[in-house]
Amino acid sequence: MSSVTGKNIRLSVFGESHGEAIGCVIDGLPSGVKLDFDRIYADMARRAPGRDKTSTPRLEKDIPHILSGMLGDKTTGAPLAMVIENTNTKSGDYDNIMTVPRPSHSDYPAYVKFGGNNDIRGGGHFSARLTAPLVFAGAVAKQILETKGVTVGAHIKQIGSVSDTPFDKNGVTKEQLLDLSSKSFSVIDPDAEDKMRGEIEKYRLDLDSVGGIIECAAVGLPVGAGGNIFDTVEGRLSQILFGIPAVKGVEFGLGFDFAKSNAKAVNDCYEVVDGKVALKSNNNGGVLGGMTSGAPLVLSVAIKPTPSIAAPQDSVNLQTMENTTLEIKGRHDPCILPRAVPVVESAVALGILDILSE
Amino acid sequence: MSSVTGKNIRLSVFGESHGEAIGCVIDGLPSGVKLDFDRIYADMARRAPGRDKTSTPRLEKDIPHILSGMLGDKTTGAPLAMVIENTNTKSGDYDNIMTVPRPSHSDYPAYVKFGGNNDIRGGGHFSARLTAPLVFAGAVAKQILETKGVTVGAHIKQIGSVSDTPFDKNGVTKEQLLDLSSKSFSVIDPDAEDKMRGEIEKYRLDLDSVGGIIECAAVGLPVGAGGNIFDTVEGRLSQILFGIPAVKGVEFGLGFDFAKSNAKAVNDCYEVVDGKVALKSNNNGGVLGGMTSGAPLVLSVAIKPTPSIAAPQDSVNLQTMENTTLEIKGRHDPCILPRAVPVVESAVALGILDILSE
Amino acid sequence: MSSVTGKNIRLSVFGESHGEAIGCVIDGLPSGVKLDFDRIYADMARRAPGRDKTSTPRLEKDIPHILSGMLGDKTTGAPLAMVIENTNTKSGDYDNIMTVPRPSHSDYPAYVKFGGNNDIRGGGHFSARLTAPLVFAGAVAKQILETKGVTVGAHIKQIGSVSDTPFDKNGVTKEQLLDLSSKSFSVIDPDAEDKMRGEIEKYRLDLDSVGGIIECAAVGLPVGAGGNIFDTVEGRLSQILFGIPAVKGVEFGLGFDFAKSNAKAVNDCYEVVDGKVALKSNNNGGVLGGMTSGAPLVLSVAIKPTPSIAAPQDSVNLQTMENTTLEIKGRHDPCILPRAVPVVESAVALGILDILSE
Amino acid sequence: MSSVTGKNIRLSVFGESHGEAIGCVIDGLPSGVKLDFDRIYADMARRAPGRDKTSTPRLEKDIPHILSGMLGDKTTGAPLAMVIENTNTKSGDYDNIMTVPRPSHSDYPAYVKFGGNNDIRGGGHFSARLTAPLVFAGAVAKQILETKGVTVGAHIKQIGSVSDTPFDKNGVTKEQLLDLSSKSFSVIDPDAEDKMRGEIEKYRLDLDSVGGIIECAAVGLPVGAGGNIFDTVEGRLSQILFGIPAVKGVEFGLGFDFAKSNAKAVNDCYEVVDGKVALKSNNNGGVLGGMTSGAPLVLSVAIKPTPSIAAPQDSVNLQTMENTTLEIKGRHDPCILPRAVPVVESAVALGILDILSE
Repeated sequence: MSSVTGKNIRLSVFGESHGEAIGCVIDGLPSGVKLDFDRIYADMARRAPGRDKTSTPRLEKDIPHILSGMLGDKTTGAPLAMVIENTNTKSGDYDNIMTVPRPSHSDYPAYVKFGGNNDIRGGGHFSARLTAPLVFAGAVAKQILETKGVTVGAHIKQIGSVSDTPFDKNGVTKEQLLDLSSKSFSVIDPDAEDKMRGEIEKYRLDLDSVGGIIECAAVGLPVGAGGNIFDTVEGRLSQILFGIPAVKGVEFGLGFDFAKSNAKAVNDCYEVVDGKVALKSNNNGGVLGGMTSGAPLVLSVAIKPTPSIAAPQDSVNLQTMENTTLEIKGRHDPCILPRAVPVVESAVALGILDILSE
Repeated sequence: MSSVTGKNIRLSVFGESHGEAIGCVIDGLPSGVKLDFDRIYADMARRAPGRDKTSTPRLEKDIPHILSGMLGDKTTGAPLAMVIENTNTKSGDYDNIMTVPRPSHSDYPAYVKFGGNNDIRGGGHFSARLTAPLVFAGAVAKQILETKGVTVGAHIKQIGSVSDTPFDKNGVTKEQLLDLSSKSFSVIDPDAEDKMRGEIEKYRLDLDSVGGIIECAAVGLPVGAGGNIFDTVEGRLSQILFGIPAVKGVEFGLGFDFAKSNAKAVNDCYEVVDGKVALKSNNNGGVLGGMTSGAPLVLSVAIKPTPSIAAPQDSVNLQTMENTTLEIKGRHDPCILPRAVPVVESAVALGILDILSE
Repeated sequence: MSSVTGKNIRLSVFGESHGEAIGCVIDGLPSGVKLDFDRIYADMARRAPGRDKTSTPRLEKDIPHILSGMLGDKTTGAPLAMVIENTNTKSGDYDNIMTVPRPSHSDYPAYVKFGGNNDIRGGGHFSARLTAPLVFAGAVAKQILETKGVTVGAHIKQIGSVSDTPFDKNGVTKEQLLDLSSKSFSVIDPDAEDKMRGEIEKYRLDLDSVGGIIECAAVGLPVGAGGNIFDTVEGRLSQILFGIPAVKGVEFGLGFDFAKSNAKAVNDCYEVVDGKVALKSNNNGGVLGGMTSGAPLVLSVAIKPTPSIAAPQDSVNLQTMENTTLEIKGRHDPCILPRAVPVVESAVALGILDILSE
Repeated sequence: MSSVTGKNIRLSVFGESHGEAIGCVIDGLPSGVKLDFDRIYADMARRAPGRDKTSTPRLEKDIPHILSGMLGDKTTGAPLAMVIENTNTKSGDYDNIMTVPRPSHSDYPAYVKFGGNNDIRGGGHFSARLTAPLVFAGAVAKQILETKGVTVGAHIKQIGSVSDTPFDKNGVTKEQLLDLSSKSFSVIDPDAEDKMRGEIEKYRLDLDSVGGIIECAAVGLPVGAGGNIFDTVEGRLSQILFGIPAVKGVEFGLGFDFAKSNAKAVNDCYEVVDGKVALKSNNNGGVLGGMTSGAPLVLSVAIKPTPSIAAPQDSVNLQTMENTTLEIKGRHDPCILPRAVPVVESAVALGILDILSE
């Protein structure tokens, strides 16, 4: 199992939900880049739980502590290490016997993989809490990308039966992305937030949860970044995106809607605009032959309903090997989408920075 | 740009559509594995063009020539190198000036990336012809996987408006997968082939092309293979799957259908069956927390309509920077799906073998 | 620049000499391995400065703080993260202008590489202090290797004009290695320590420093680990060994003495001993064709004299670009060899564990 | 086992001594670089056997056949694949039972590693013949390095008791390196060739072989290439250099002579020359803190005596597990050094190109 990724910008993520701390090491960053930590904390706050009814009321004080790689407000070029202390740790509390795995969670395969030695408290290393260092790293990547003229942003495209206005694939702008990135509930259509909150509340009251889709875009990319076969922009971003818990699908441009499409309708033709080559449409989501086309990068990720729900569920007791009913205590997000927006932005920003760093 | 992939089983693919040859080197294979080359050729024939009206009538004699790594019919453990000669090469014919890029192809970004030096004849290294070595490598991987009890197979789930019966995610069997892998037009519903051929013919007559979805499954996987964060089964397979030209989306289990789902309906609960842990459903497509769950692996890939169509399209002349109309000569697949089935199987088989080799 | 290494066991090292902290993340460790931290601390103490006149009198309290990857005294299989706080940090003290680079140090190339943004205080990320996390990781690796029957140990083979008895290449034992690993001044010949200390003292009094050779061995290795061409045991270990500051040469078995040798004298012939294949000699240092031969692994590393000496040296002022004389303040090791023994052991242990983990 | 190396320029080597062919794929090359194949063939001829009494009289026609990655005389940026047919293959001759392993060869560990399935004819994938594709790749790398102002060259520093004049570490020039690279017996001192040939002949007549040292240098490198800890110039080059059969040691600058040196004598001080920083000496061989210092890169590799000698040697019969005497038939190089010079140059050129490609 590897929690390390990246070819040029290497991210190593560590920590367990109820261990001492979580954190990350980012290796390969350029030196001399000024970082605005308030903006980094803002992204981390967007991911943090407890802001409103749509997310879990647990209180986490996720204050990233920088250990290395910075001198004053600039990167030194050495590995940037960051730690967030866990405040929910009770020392000596090693009651760690997996009895009843939560359905649709990592519990059961992790139990088999690690022979019962993994830390199961709060999901251990598989906890969604591990997305906090990912957001930290992504927020750093976003600021470095800005020095290259690249902006990344995302919004909630769908929750259950409620949809937001999708990106105009060929017209998305830097301003729109920055605006979305500044929101705690990122939607394009101003009416979508209330409808989506209503949808979430409906499932919450039913002790249930609901899934959705997050759409992410990036503008300012050069033409020809990435490569074909095993080095495609799509493949490299997906490898990171599927590292976000609950992500079960990734598509670029029209994605699965290509299935019912014909080339005459969806081919992205060219035209000369201001003496430059431009695409007349962007159904390919900014990637052609695995390389950036110059049009905005547009992708969507499918996120499953939070598997932790309050309603009783069928499971098995792994010690007695008998059927049983599981009731998960505590309160969990009835919908992870609002908090997952900065996580998706981060994964995309990290992947793009890695691609542009060669 | 990298045409090398894999951590434990490393595949290096080379070749250009109109160059001397295409081929691959597979590094890290176990020694002493008996390979049945007739079955490898059969998979390559499933991918090869020219079998019927649904595919391009060009004649390719894709005979793989083994250069190393085999002694008699067994692997030696040294790199397995394979070459397929290109028969459409005209030596000395280096007229290689990119003038009008084909819409939705790699042409334009490749022109920018390689400064006009890449071989553009037939798409060069970006040609779908490069999937031939991928199918070779995948066919080898499938036979090695069989020694581990793992079987991979795929079918055309959808072409345009026509759908095949999808896999029963929790009930797909080895026999079903082997049967699908033996077909040249892989569908589950016997009626689907004619309907799909009709759909393709409709677009062909209109000088157009159509997209679709291929669904792939694998059975016999152990529990706990893969890992979380940056080592998920989903991420590792996607990185390879997006290397297949025209693939624009990858989803596992319900994938994008999770967006409108609630946990009560889609969580995969557990039960004890014959003294073992079993899943009562498999909406997660055999992957939980990035690891195999023991249920069949089930994934789908979205494939866009072949961008090369006979109808005239808007493009630009890169030499004069003027708008122009492009008419692509020759005949092309009005639908790539039937030939892409063994390619998807191969990508999945390679990815699984790499994951199981650690 | 990368501070990440390893294929199966990935080590990411971070920190700067005068930053907040140094540490490491070890990714890919097996789960359920019991670790004795007293033994880990003992190895770290062997590396730590300030024990006697042969090393710098600076006081470092290098207490490793475990952040993740352990539950009680066992590994969980998740990344093992460790942090050591720097106590010599003065917050706000960012006077970081490189004026006069120390001869034979990283100062000048680092200044050029990082455009003056790297943390130069104490050498920053290039400080030998970064070997502390390496020793931590190596001490963990040594304990995991013990569960596989492999033991690693090293001694000071030479300092200046004084030599220790070299390993009997075909007769080195586990007991000998464990004994050497328990010493703070590791030599085989009991008389060597005093002579070497005398040699060091001679250079110290002359405001000078002296180099030497460390010889390292490992026993209990299986036959056939490693591989040829780009995966040799020699190449993989060297890549890590050259990461130790001041290491300028690595040789296996007779190494550079092979240059004046003939095959009749140095070929390692075979014989049957107790029904098994044995080597009659081990001039190849336990590696044949890049793979372990079953004989003890024996290698030597050359270490240059500590470049930081009290005597004045010629250098340049990088701000004014004028010649100048540099006098390095503070006190430094007149010979790094005694402290470098556990560092070499650690690099070898890490490399072997990575090789055996596939 | 991996025959793939490199981070940015990835080389995959394949083939077995008596298989169909040997060759390589170089992935990640820049596009549009004009290659002079006559110069590539010249380097390959320097490595090829049969030129005179110092090398084996076997006739090999090592004509590299380019399969992809070139268009006319320029690189396309796609993988550059090359094949050399083996002419000594007898089809159907699969008599492959390892009975008596050759001392100091890969035979025995390979037998254990591959369970007897590896191709043992001529050493299989472990044959020194596999250095032919390495020289091809290195010759390509050398031409690309020239476009960056970097020149690589090597000479025989020592054979048995005979030494050549070593490089003036701080004064080696491009012209000297080009001159050495053009020779079939590369020495600096014009008298050294005859003496070395005499030394070799002495051992040849005694049915024996002799080892030696090759010294390699590179000039024109920028300051600050490479990096510290696990990314040092020394470590990256060593990882490739140890892939050359018979290499048992690698040292940079003074290397093992540092052991008896003191800092006052060997520290490389700085001075301003023509307004630029210059080193007054180059005992570190052009690498400081793992990075290039701007001075010439100077390294040496130790090469053991060719283990294949005509004299009878002790070995064991692996089938009967009895002691036996082995007499190796055929004729072999009594000294590999003259042919190994271009191989060392190639390994260094490839490593430098990989380092400079980031």
